[in-house]
Amino acid sequence: MTYRLSDFGSFHVGGRKVVVRDQPTRMMSYTPASPPTEKDPNGIYWIDQAYVQYFIPEDSADRLPIIFLHGGGLTGVTWETTPDGRPGWLQLFLKWGYPVYVVDQPERGRAGFSVVPNTWDGEPMSRAAEEAWTLFRFGDADGFDRRTNYPGCDFPVNALEAFIKQAVPRWTTTRPIHIAAFADVIDRIGPCTVICHSQGGDTAHPVVTARPEIVRNVVALEPSGFAPDPIADPLKGQRYLYVYGDFIDRHPMWRQLDQPARSSAERLRSAGAEVDWWSLSDHGLPGQSHMLMMDRSSAKTAALVRDWIAKGRA
Amino acid sequence: MTYRLSDFGSFHVGGRKVVVRDQPTRMMSYTPASPPTEKDPNGIYWIDQAYVQYFIPEDSADRLPIIFLHGGGLTGVTWETTPDGRPGWLQLFLKWGYPVYVVDQPERGRAGFSVVPNTWDGEPMSRAAEEAWTLFRFGDADGFDRRTNYPGCDFPVNALEAFIKQAVPRWTTTRPIHIAAFADVIDRIGPCTVICHSQGGDTAHPVVTARPEIVRNVVALEPSGFAPDPIADPLKGQRYLYVYGDFIDRHPMWRQLDQPARSSAERLRSAGAEVDWWSLSDHGLPGQSHMLMMDRSSAKTAALVRDWIAKGRA
Repeated sequence: MTYRLSDFGSFHVGGRKVVVRDQPTRMMSYTPASPPTEKDPNGIYWIDQAYVQYFIPEDSADRLPIIFLHGGGLTGVTWETTPDGRPGWLQLFLKWGYPVYVVDQPERGRAGFSVVPNTWDGEPMSRAAEEAWTLFRFGDADGFDRRTNYPGCDFPVNALEAFIKQAVPRWTTTRPIHIAAFADVIDRIGPCTVICHSQGGDTAHPVVTARPEIVRNVVALEPSGFAPDPIADPLKGQRYLYVYGDFIDRHPMWRQLDQPARSSAERLRSAGAEVDWWSLSDHGLPGQSHMLMMDRSSAKTAALVRDWIAKGRA
Repeated sequence: MTYRLSDFGSFHVGGRKVVVRDQPTRMMSYTPASPPTEKDPNGIYWIDQAYVQYFIPEDSADRLPIIFLHGGGLTGVTWETTPDGRPGWLQLFLKWGYPVYVVDQPERGRAGFSVVPNTWDGEPMSRAAEEAWTLFRFGDADGFDRRTNYPGCDFPVNALEAFIKQAVPRWTTTRPIHIAAFADVIDRIGPCTVICHSQGGDTAHPVVTARPEIVRNVVALEPSGFAPDPIADPLKGQRYLYVYGDFIDRHPMWRQLDQPARSSAERLRSAGAEVDWWSLSDHGLPGQSHMLMMDRSSAKTAALVRDWIAKGRA
């Protein structure tokens, strides 16, 4: 593939200033070669911001920008080169002429976490490969050691190690921070399509339902959070697509998220939105995992999503 | 500017597998909408890896790739869009036809930090804006509140907030991990030029001096770490450029790093390398700060560095 860009770059957006006071200074060296210097932790820090990297194709033909919002314990890397080395959804949608904005949510990746005391509740956590294996529906727990995945599972399990390297710690107490920063992202970019994944759906739903005129299409890939109840704004003209992979019945969390997801779709419809609901196995793509943008059929799934976007105000 | 790329993408490289055992499980919810699920922290994690994002121009005319290595408390964002919105060194060198690889060092940015117990010594720390102000030589401490920088200082102080948002926490105990991961980066990419900044110089020096045939040019922007003593390998044919901004005498750490840096240059010369030493004020660019790739003259500094690279095996 070749890419012709009129611009690319990055920015941080949102967050807030915090001031640390009355902490002791101490002498320290930043590197072995550096002389001891007085480290004064007091002063101004900036936390809770999001990081956005953007790519604008030369010929976007006025296509709406796509904003990619990753899931929990991951970063914008989700949309880049797949763990087994194929182009990711970032590259594909860019190649198809869409301006693409990739977000790192606050406290993840290049957004930066915070070590200022008492800013976020709780501790960061990360996932063992074994937990990812079952939670992301690559296979049953019994199959982990031999990498025996579900029959027909489309995730490239030979690239499991490369995928696990993409994981970053996450807090689970920072939902309001994620929502505020994502609202700042949208308001800076303007009219757009949002493609969110997993915990990114929990961040996106309250933001997009409050901006029906700005966010025209929303693609929620196996979201783990849903539309507010009640929905405050009329959503006429806003379009939603919920996308699910396979093996939903094999993990209790996904089984239990099915009904809330369907209720969310109903609330969106009642508020005036158009809502489509896809199980990818009904669209010729069985075996997709929770990481469907990394599965072997990821380019086919992306093409289906592209075509759905193109039918609306894309 | 426009950019024509034959490829771009990302990968993680290096690091190691660790196994957590005998920790208790607990019930938790990842999002408010998600049902409680049993969180089992035991199992396999991958830590200490580096993240690399790469951009390959269509017409690179066999130019050597450039590997950008950021400094402490920062990420690869250092080389992207400047805090005041101009193209960064990533964009400039790409536009000039160089394949560009941007690294996030382990535990920074998209490389991901680790919450596996007892993996790294000490605690992560970050810098108050006030410390960055003096340590990066924007101005004296007295000038911080009113953003009164050194007369002639070229850093865009009106964009200080945008710069501070780029900061991430860092450990100061992970030097061997940085070195190992950067060696893995180089060995994956092959013949190259390395441009390192500040603590990135501490990481780079032991790696590049051990690879004189692979790393052909090294541009060390105000490094805070230096060549090993003694240097084990003959460095004949390898080229080094040390680059310094202004106001070195205004901060004790930079004053004290001057002699070790000059000794490092001498050791490199004695081992057979060609070494140039620039104070940018002697090259028509006074007022450069420690963040010289973000200063208002950053494109001019980059062009000087490009021309220096082009004189060697570029």
